Amino acid sequence: MRSLLLAFVFFAALPCLAQQPLLNLMPMPATVQLGTGWMTIDASFSVGIQGNSDPRLERSVELFLTNLRRQTGMPLLLLKITEVPQAKLVVEASRSNPAVQELGEDESYRLEITNGGAKLSAATILGVMRGFETFLQLVETTPQGFAVPAVTIVDHPRFLWRGLMIDVGRHFMPPDVMRRNLDGMAALKLNVLHWHLSENQGFRVESKKFPKLTSMGSDGLFYTQDEVRELIAYAAERGIRVVPEFDMPGHSTSWFVGYPELASAPGPYQIERKWGIFDPAMDPTEEQTYRFLDKFIGEMAELFPDPYFHIGGDEVNGKQWDANPKIQAFKRAHGFKSNEDLQAYFNQRVEKLVSKHGKIMVGWDEILRPDLPKNIVVQSWRGQESLAQAAKQGYRGLLSYGYYLDLMWSAARHYAVDPMGDGAANLSPEEAALILGGEACMWSEYVSPENIDSRIWPRLAAIAERLWSPAGVADVDSMYQRMQVTSRWLDWRGLTHNSSYPPMLRRIAGSDQIASLEILADVLEPVKDYSREETAPVEPTSLIPLDRLIDAARPESATGRQFGAMVDALLAGHASAPTRQQIRQMLISWRDNQASLQPLEKQSFLLQEVVPASDNLTRVATAGLEALDYMDRGARAEEAWKTQTLALLEDAGKQQAQLLLVIVPSIEKLVQAAAGGTTALMSR
Amino acid sequence: MRSLLLAFVFFAALPCLAQQPLLNLMPMPATVQLGTGWMTIDASFSVGIQGNSDPRLERSVELFLTNLRRQTGMPLLLLKITEVPQAKLVVEASRSNPAVQELGEDESYRLEITNGGAKLSAATILGVMRGFETFLQLVETTPQGFAVPAVTIVDHPRFLWRGLMIDVGRHFMPPDVMRRNLDGMAALKLNVLHWHLSENQGFRVESKKFPKLTSMGSDGLFYTQDEVRELIAYAAERGIRVVPEFDMPGHSTSWFVGYPELASAPGPYQIERKWGIFDPAMDPTEEQTYRFLDKFIGEMAELFPDPYFHIGGDEVNGKQWDANPKIQAFKRAHGFKSNEDLQAYFNQRVEKLVSKHGKIMVGWDEILRPDLPKNIVVQSWRGQESLAQAAKQGYRGLLSYGYYLDLMWSAARHYAVDPMGDGAANLSPEEAALILGGEACMWSEYVSPENIDSRIWPRLAAIAERLWSPAGVADVDSMYQRMQVTSRWLDWRGLTHNSSYPPMLRRIAGSDQIASLEILADVLEPVKDYSREETAPVEPTSLIPLDRLIDAARPESATGRQFGAMVDALLAGHASAPTRQQIRQMLISWRDNQASLQPLEKQSFLLQEVVPASDNLTRVATAGLEALDYMDRGARAEEAWKTQTLALLEDAGKQQAQLLLVIVPSIEKLVQAAAGGTTALMSR
Repeated sequence: MRSLLLAFVFFAALPCLAQQPLLNLMPMPATVQLGTGWMTIDASFSVGIQGNSDPRLERSVELFLTNLRRQTGMPLLLLKITEVPQAKLVVEASRSNPAVQELGEDESYRLEITNGGAKLSAATILGVMRGFETFLQLVETTPQGFAVPAVTIVDHPRFLWRGLMIDVGRHFMPPDVMRRNLDGMAALKLNVLHWHLSENQGFRVESKKFPKLTSMGSDGLFYTQDEVRELIAYAAERGIRVVPEFDMPGHSTSWFVGYPELASAPGPYQIERKWGIFDPAMDPTEEQTYRFLDKFIGEMAELFPDPYFHIGGDEVNGKQWDANPKIQAFKRAHGFKSNEDLQAYFNQRVEKLVSKHGKIMVGWDEILRPDLPKNIVVQSWRGQESLAQAAKQGYRGLLSYGYYLDLMWSAARHYAVDPMGDGAANLSPEEAALILGGEACMWSEYVSPENIDSRIWPRLAAIAERLWSPAGVADVDSMYQRMQVTSRWLDWRGLTHNSSYPPMLRRIAGSDQIASLEILADVLEPVKDYSREETAPVEPTSLIPLDRLIDAARPESATGRQFGAMVDALLAGHASAPTRQQIRQMLISWRDNQASLQPLEKQSFLLQEVVPASDNLTRVATAGLEALDYMDRGARAEEAWKTQTLALLEDAGKQQAQLLLVIVPSIEKLVQAAAGGTTALMSR
Repeated sequence: MRSLLLAFVFFAALPCLAQQPLLNLMPMPATVQLGTGWMTIDASFSVGIQGNSDPRLERSVELFLTNLRRQTGMPLLLLKITEVPQAKLVVEASRSNPAVQELGEDESYRLEITNGGAKLSAATILGVMRGFETFLQLVETTPQGFAVPAVTIVDHPRFLWRGLMIDVGRHFMPPDVMRRNLDGMAALKLNVLHWHLSENQGFRVESKKFPKLTSMGSDGLFYTQDEVRELIAYAAERGIRVVPEFDMPGHSTSWFVGYPELASAPGPYQIERKWGIFDPAMDPTEEQTYRFLDKFIGEMAELFPDPYFHIGGDEVNGKQWDANPKIQAFKRAHGFKSNEDLQAYFNQRVEKLVSKHGKIMVGWDEILRPDLPKNIVVQSWRGQESLAQAAKQGYRGLLSYGYYLDLMWSAARHYAVDPMGDGAANLSPEEAALILGGEACMWSEYVSPENIDSRIWPRLAAIAERLWSPAGVADVDSMYQRMQVTSRWLDWRGLTHNSSYPPMLRRIAGSDQIASLEILADVLEPVKDYSREETAPVEPTSLIPLDRLIDAARPESATGRQFGAMVDALLAGHASAPTRQQIRQMLISWRDNQASLQPLEKQSFLLQEVVPASDNLTRVATAGLEALDYMDRGARAEEAWKTQTLALLEDAGKQQAQLLLVIVPSIEKLVQAAAGGTTALMSR
């Protein structure tokens, strides 16, 4: 850590840092030492492979060069692999990697850049891949050309398991969506794709042994086995393991459409269209269930090379079991006191199958029972306390609590969640070592191929940093500054979180004239946590188009955050004149926005629900301008104005069309300040 | 034509047309009759296939539904093929199509939409595909939901051959670039991809018989035969024929790198890096040349199913032939008076090979000699006069003159070029029938995978309309209005002409803050015709990155066009108060832009060359504001001011960094008007 701190101090001394952080690295490496000068990257740039090469290392160099060409606009026929003496960047991986990427493979690397050349050395190809991503983030447009700064970076991940779960069960994501998100994951040094492949709403992988799983349970939306193999290879080339999840015994209605005999109540079953927890569950008392799963897991164990195999195991409500006399009799005969006991029995049986087929079982919190072998891994949606309890029993764990991207939290809120924090803070070193890392989760009730990127990115970058960087890397302002740059930089990887925003707004507006809609959308965020379900105007299902403003609006408003920071600076008395001017201009444009949005509202059904939010923006901005006027005049606002305005703000702070107007808290601060409540406010 | 005119008259009577054309169709159909009301498109929308179905028809419905889902944001599991009685849209193709799409296949269709449902009927699947595209362009966001207007459209193409040539020889375009451009072509009802596959700078198709063509002549940038087959199938699913071009005997240096024995001078040869016309040419006197071509054409004739085969034949400078005594002797022995005679001999020999392998030869103007059989097709870069001469001799022709997208012309200029115009205007009906249509050409000296879309789109839409729509569809304002909408609509097809603009500007700026650079770039256009070569600061080659502002700036500035229209309205005395206000505001923002751009200029090498253009923008906008001030005051500007300002404008009208400041002519009009030259100006 000392080198990193030194680096930070050194940066702070550079005059240009005030406007822009010099190194836009994310996740921040373990140690960074800035040198002097730059290494230019021009048409003559090439990479040399030192020591033993292998086709995968060469392939990773080719991928790096492809990315570098995209960032710099270099022609496809430039930037090649050359002999070491001619190479500008020399890479070396001292060991060869196992054929299938393993948990815990060395990902450390050392990147040394001087004016004259660069050296990237690592123990493994994985380390080289991680170092390449750091190199790409260092590339800047400078007065002398494209260049990377002279720097020495020695880096390694804090956690071994840094994942993203994508739920393709509730909404299917075609292969191209998976590919571009794998590209994004690689850019942020994540190393596990947890692929949630079956749900009540759909079964997404071709099974040759049980073809009705997809012919009846997928709406035709599934991956062929060839597509699965291609995506696994694509991930492997980026240093990403692919862990499949087949959720059982619950969350499994789609299995029962083709195979009702697996269920605990007679069929027929339909693919579920609603969201939530449902009754259907596998029958844990029937041997045919295990015969099916034996064959099925055997087939999938061959298809997915990763040693880990996720069986879900979450959210069984037990209603089908309670209603089935045969299952009740089974419970009594085995002395099971609860459905949890019954599920534990199921898990033990399944674990033996998973293990028989050479895999290690992973499951959600609910699977944890001391009767399972110690090599299983528990993924916690409940929190660090659960992981700590598991660790104390000798089980390995992964944190997903706090990393649910679908809850629309701010990046800062995710960033503050640490796998070793809270309930896991006081583990012994041996116990702590059992916490492998974490996984962000993209549950897909409300994401489509069109907007999933904007739900994952750029916030995932903050979680990726939490899982890779030293625990002390926790400066939120720095994180946001770098995340903003990273967000744009990810455009080069083909992610669509930026590019899909204007087309979605144009569809909503029913017009190409979206300036005013964009001004509004830029300060709206979808409601948080599970409010979208709770406040839904009609019951949400998988059949409803995701084309409303809530589906286009970004989970976290950068405009809102920047405005908030400016208001805070103003109230703290250190806002510059341009900042004060900018606050006023923003308020004026918000106040006047409704006038230009109004004509659109009449021509689009998708805009009609947004009218109240647009009205609120005008009202709130007007209040903000009034507050500014009071302050500019040096006058203290009247109590009546304050009371009335705060009531207005309270009203405007409520969701409209399931969207939150994010500037309300900052306007409230302005109002409080104008009414003389500044001191109280500042101490918040 | 009468129905179309009626339709236009009818549109004009609708009050809402003033703001926005009601039907944003492009190319404009042959006849359009608007009905009353709308047919809504909601989650229950489905398509039924009437009469005989076939897998290709079903596939085209699936493609249509995919596109419709994207436009409306409908879930992947909605919008299905159903039985006809339940279907909202019924499609029928009365005949089945030949296995390989043919020139002249019936593409007509009839689309009838009422409140209650729609019917699309066509003679062939091709017609259905064209009708689907019209339907997709009709989809709008309305107050009641997504909907298409009640309308009857009876449509057919004016020309049988409506193509886009993409030169992948000079800059290779990976398969994904080809795929998205095929999607765009289909959207505009184009039906031929002319694939320029070999050039001095690269040979781009794997040959199993002559592997050194790519192993030595492609820099590793080529399509495998599997990729070729996949792209042909992809095109066929969109009703697009793929005509390969292998340019010979010139433009063929890349062949000679691996096979120098084909050339007319001894090797060795290197892949050409420069642009232009070069000396190397095949040796037309050696039998081994024809043995090679026999085998090669045989292999390619099998790979490419289309009956037409393009042999290039352009721009042989004859220098290698003149310098080779053996070739000179051959000419004398055969009584050839010129190199043109020698090339004609070559073409005859090649035509026999093409014909032997079951194909019909296509070539550029130069191949036309009366000794070739009448079934060949001449593609003219020279103009309609060439086509007319060919037609008079009984040869079929294609126009490409006037459709070169790389020359950076305005859409209006391309739009004005008609295959039946100028020299072809006075042909007999029989002769006229020999003019098959035309092809836009995307020569690729200055395009990369990143910016090729912005060079092709949206201007290609204007050419597509010229080739599809009745000759009388020629209203330029209407074309621009619809082209603008079409440009955005094409985002749904994955084209990147809009989305790649901000990332390219961010790279040039070396910053995410690109607002001021965008203001400047929005009023700059690349120099026209061949000026880029003629004014290049360093000799352009295939090794130079295409990352300058000239590579990002759009070929035609929409901002410039709109500003020009507003100025014209102002000077004609019918500009509204908001328009006058907007003119002033635009001028102010241009005048003040340099101040915000200046800090960026210091940090990026790519911005340095743009400084003079930015300075000019400030100067020119200042002049425009001065002119407005004179006019507002009702004062006539002094002669000295006029002289000085016109000199300034003349200077600012010159290229800077190979970019043209497009507002200069409009500012000149303002200056002339302020100085009292309004009348002269108005009569221009």
